Amino acid sequence: MAQQEIKIALCGAGNVGGAVLELLTVNADFYKKMFDTDFLVTDVVTKSGKLRGYKDKFNGNIHTDFESIINNDSIDVVIEVMGGIDDAYKVAKQAIESKKDFITANKAMMSLHGDELFKLAEKNNLFIGFEASVAGGIPIIKSLSSKARIENISWFAGILNGTSNYILSKMESDGIELKEGVKQAQELGFAEADPTLDLNGTDAAQKGKVLSYLAFGSKLDSSIELDIEGIDMVESIDFKFALELGYSIKPLSIGSYEKDRLILKSFPALIQQSSILSKVNDEMNAIEVFTKDSGSNLFYGPGAGPKPTASSILSDLFDIAQDNKVNYSKFGQGLMEISNDTFSCQRYLRLEVNDSPGVMAKISSFIAKQNLSIESVIQKEDFSQNGLIPIVIVLNECNENELEDLLNSFSNEKDLFKKIVHLRIFNPNK
Amino acid sequence: MAQQEIKIALCGAGNVGGAVLELLTVNADFYKKMFDTDFLVTDVVTKSGKLRGYKDKFNGNIHTDFESIINNDSIDVVIEVMGGIDDAYKVAKQAIESKKDFITANKAMMSLHGDELFKLAEKNNLFIGFEASVAGGIPIIKSLSSKARIENISWFAGILNGTSNYILSKMESDGIELKEGVKQAQELGFAEADPTLDLNGTDAAQKGKVLSYLAFGSKLDSSIELDIEGIDMVESIDFKFALELGYSIKPLSIGSYEKDRLILKSFPALIQQSSILSKVNDEMNAIEVFTKDSGSNLFYGPGAGPKPTASSILSDLFDIAQDNKVNYSKFGQGLMEISNDTFSCQRYLRLEVNDSPGVMAKISSFIAKQNLSIESVIQKEDFSQNGLIPIVIVLNECNENELEDLLNSFSNEKDLFKKIVHLRIFNPNK
Repeated sequence: MAQQEIKIALCGAGNVGGAVLELLTVNADFYKKMFDTDFLVTDVVTKSGKLRGYKDKFNGNIHTDFESIINNDSIDVVIEVMGGIDDAYKVAKQAIESKKDFITANKAMMSLHGDELFKLAEKNNLFIGFEASVAGGIPIIKSLSSKARIENISWFAGILNGTSNYILSKMESDGIELKEGVKQAQELGFAEADPTLDLNGTDAAQKGKVLSYLAFGSKLDSSIELDIEGIDMVESIDFKFALELGYSIKPLSIGSYEKDRLILKSFPALIQQSSILSKVNDEMNAIEVFTKDSGSNLFYGPGAGPKPTASSILSDLFDIAQDNKVNYSKFGQGLMEISNDTFSCQRYLRLEVNDSPGVMAKISSFIAKQNLSIESVIQKEDFSQNGLIPIVIVLNECNENELEDLLNSFSNEKDLFKKIVHLRIFNPNK
Repeated sequence: MAQQEIKIALCGAGNVGGAVLELLTVNADFYKKMFDTDFLVTDVVTKSGKLRGYKDKFNGNIHTDFESIINNDSIDVVIEVMGGIDDAYKVAKQAIESKKDFITANKAMMSLHGDELFKLAEKNNLFIGFEASVAGGIPIIKSLSSKARIENISWFAGILNGTSNYILSKMESDGIELKEGVKQAQELGFAEADPTLDLNGTDAAQKGKVLSYLAFGSKLDSSIELDIEGIDMVESIDFKFALELGYSIKPLSIGSYEKDRLILKSFPALIQQSSILSKVNDEMNAIEVFTKDSGSNLFYGPGAGPKPTASSILSDLFDIAQDNKVNYSKFGQGLMEISNDTFSCQRYLRLEVNDSPGVMAKISSFIAKQNLSIESVIQKEDFSQNGLIPIVIVLNECNENELEDLLNSFSNEKDLFKKIVHLRIFNPNK
C-alpha cells in the first residue's frame, strides 16, 4: 500500500479529545508502520478556544466554531467528541455534506439521527464510525455488525451504563442504599454532578437503540421512543432477597426480535448468579449477544474513560485508513414496530404489608384473579420495619400488560400495600 | 459497490465444512444483499469423495485430492477445514502460490507455519483468514489484531480449550475426579476418543501461540516450543482447598510482554473467584486482554462447534468480499526469545505428608532455605487418607526457577512427601 496522509479535525477538546490527540501524537511512528498512513490532527474546534486535555506538541489550528473546518477541503475526517445533540448533529451533517468521513462518540445524537446520517453518508460514499458511542472501549459496534451480517441475532442484553452498574454493585457488595452509592460514584468520577440520565435509564436506552439498529435494523430516529425504567426503586434489601433466590441485580438494556416482534427496553433486572453477565461489576460494561446457530457471545470491558473511548475512535480512523468503510445504511429495515407490551418474563415483587392475619391469602387471591401464578414466596419477619413486613413473591412468566393489571388491582388496596417494588427477572435461557 | 461473484473451494467436508456450505446456501440472498456478492462453493475436496455434513442443494464438483482445485484458476478462495498439519500446510502454500486467498480453522498448522504463510501471502498480495483457528465462534483474531494496532498489549489470558474447561468445571461443580470428567466430556461430544492433545495443554498452547503473534509479534514457526502443563494432576480435593482460598481452577494460556521479556505458557491455574475469567464454565472459551491505557477487555463465547466455527470462517470470507484484507505479515517482529523462567506468580502447593510431629517445621525450613515465603497454610485432618494428611501452602510470588529449586529440595525427602501438587495462581491485577 502506498503511503498516505489523513488530515483530521477534532470537534471537542476535553478528556476524550485530548486522549485522541495524545495517542495519535505519541504512537505516530507505530501507526504509520501499521497503516502506511500519517494521521495528522490539523484542526481542533473548542468553544473555549483552549485545549483542556493533551496539549503537548500540537501545532495545528484551534477554532471556536466549526464552520471553518467544514469549509476546509483539505480535511478528510471529522471526529466529534463534543457531546450534546443539536450541535453535534449539525457538525455530522455538514461534515458529510462537505465530503468528509465522520467519527463520533455520541450515542444520544446517533440514536435520534442515525438513519438520516447513514443514508447521507451512503449517498456521498462516505463512512460514519461510531464504535465509541456504545460501551466505550468494547469493540461492540464492529463485533455486533459483523455478527448481524452472518447470522440472525435473537437477542442482546447489555450492561451499558457504568454509573448505574457501579452503584448497584456497591449496594450489593457493601449493603449501602442508592443515595450513598450515588455519592461514592460521584466522588470517584463514575457519576456526573447531575446523574439523572444515567440513573433513569436514558443513557443505557440510547445505547441499546443503537445496538438494536445493528442487530435488527430498527430505526434510529425519533419515531422509537425510549422505554426506560431507572434504578432508583432498588433498595439494599432487594439484594438480600435476590441473593436468597440466587440472583444479582443489574441495569440491563435488552433487545430481541422474533416473529416480527421487536422488544427494546432498559430496566434493572434480577439475573441468575450463575450467568456470566451477573459477574460484570463496578463501572464495567458488557454485552451478551445470542444467535440460534452460535449461542452466546459476551463482550466485556471499560464502558467509559478517555483512553478506552479514544482507542475505539482510533479503530474507526484505522478503518478509514484501510478503506474498510462499512455502509451502515444497509442495516436499516425501517419497518419494525416496538411490541414491548408482549415482553414476557418472571417477576420479582416486593410488597411491604401490614402485619395482619390473612394478608397472604388476600395477595394470593389477587394474583389468582389475574390468572397469574406464583413460583415462590419469601416472608421475613426479621426484615420488618415500622410494623410493615416485606413479602417477596416470584411470579411465573407474564407479559407487561398482565403485570400492569395486577399492579393496578393492588393499588386499590392502599391500606394493605404500603409499597410495591417490581423488578423483572431476566432469564436468557428461557 | 458493483455486484461480484466469489468462487470458493472447500477442503474438508465434515461437520465444520458442512456448516459453511449450509450457511452459504441457506443465507445466500441475505449475504448477497449485505455484501453485493454471490458466494459460490464450486468445489469440495474430501478424501472419501462424499459430503458428510450438509448435502442439500450442492451442485458443485467433489474431488478426492486438492491438485485439481489448485490448478483451477477460476477459484478465488480456498477454505481449509480438513485438519492435520502437513497436508493442510501443502494446501495453504499451494493455494497462495496459485493466487487464491486462503481461510483456515487450523491452529496447529498456523502455529508452525504462520510466519512463512503470512510472508508468502504478502508477496502475492493475498489474504489469510484464520478467525476460526482460535476460540471457535469468538471474534478474537479480529478483536486482538485491531487492539494490537492501537495500543501495546501487556498480557492476555485465555481459556482456549473447551474440553479441559468442561472437565475442570464438572470436577468443581460435581466433586468428581478427572477420569469421570473425561468420560462425561466424551459422552457429550466435548472430548475426542483420544483427548491427549486437549488434556496435556497442546491444543491450548497452539492457540496461545497464534494469539501471541498478534499481540506481541512473536514467531509462528518451529523455533518457539510449546510450554505446556496438562490438567491431569488436578484432583477434586484441589477444588475444595481452592474454594476455601477464594479461587477456581481453570486451564489458562497466558502471554505477556514487558521489558523485552516474552512469557508464553499453558497450565491449569487458580484464579480468584471475583474475576470474570473464573466464571467461564463448561465448554465455553474466553480471552482477557489487558492494555495499560484501556484496562481489561474480555471476549467470551463458544470455543468450538460446527456453526460457531463456520460463522468465524464466514467473517473472513466477508472480509475478502469487502476487500478488507489485513496484512498479517506486519505483526511479526521475529526477534523475541521466550523468558518463561522469569514468570513469577504466587504458588499453590498441596503436599501429602505422613502425620508425624514436626512436619510443618520441616516444610517451613525447606521453604525458608530457598528464601521463599509463605502467605498461608491450610491443614485439614478430615481430608486425610491412608494416614496421609494434605497440607496446602500458598507461597508468595516466586519465579519458575525458584519454584523448581524448592520442589527439588522436597524430592530429596521422599519419606516425608508422598505427593506434591503444584499449581500456579494467576492474579492479573498484580
